[in-house]
Amino acid sequence: MPGENVKKPYYAVIFTSTRNDEDEGYAEMAEEMEQLARQQEGFISMDTAQGPTNITVCYWTSLEAISAWKHEVRHRHAQKLGKSKWYRNYSVKVCKVEKDYSFPEL
Amino acid sequence: MPGENVKKPYYAVIFTSTRNDEDEGYAEMAEEMEQLARQQEGFISMDTAQGPTNITVCYWTSLEAISAWKHEVRHRHAQKLGKSKWYRNYSVKVCKVEKDYSFPEL
Repeated sequence: MPGENVKKPYYAVIFTSTRNDEDEGYAEMAEEMEQLARQQEGFISMDTAQGPTNITVCYWTSLEAISAWKHEVRHRHAQKLGKSKWYRNYSVKVCKVEKDYSFPEL
Repeated sequence: MPGENVKKPYYAVIFTSTRNDEDEGYAEMAEEMEQLARQQEGFISMDTAQGPTNITVCYWTSLEAISAWKHEVRHRHAQKLGKSKWYRNYSVKVCKVEKDYSFPEL
C-alpha cells in the first residue's frame, strides 16, 4: 500500500485470479514469486488478498520494470505452471496511477 | 474481472484498507455501497478480497464517473463513517488501464 510519497509516474499491476482445486506446489511457488518480485529493480510494494476472486496488486516504478519481471526466467516458469495446474482463470491489468490519496493523510 | 473486451480507455480504482476492531454496521454498509456502486453510470465491474490488507478494485469507464461516485451523497456518508469507525487506514489509487490480458484468452 504505497502512500502519497511515491513519486509519479508509477504503475500498478492488478492480478486477479480464481484457482483450480490443485494445490500441489502452489503455496511454495507463490511465496517464492513474492520474494523474487520484491528483489526486482523498480519494485515498490505488493498487496495480496483472498476472496471468490484473489487479488494481488503490485506497484512498480516503470513499465520497463513490469516487462522485465514478466519475462524473468523463474517467473516465466511459474506462469507456465500456473496455466497448466493452479489457475482456472486470471486477468492482468497494467495501470498507470493517476491519483492517490490515503487516510490518515500522510 | 473485466476481460479484454472492455473498450479502452477505462479506469481502475484500487481501494486497500486495514480495519479497526469495530464491526458495528460495517457489513451492511459494505453491501449497500457495493449495490449502489453497481448502479452508477460508468460502472464496469468490481472485485473484492480479504487479507492483512483488504483490496477492492472497481473498474469505471471514465474519470468523471469515478468522481461522481466519490461525491455521491450516500457514499460520502459511508466514507465519513469509515474514517471515524471502521478503518485504521486506507489508500485509494485512481489508475488508467494501459494494457490487459487474461487466461484463458478471450
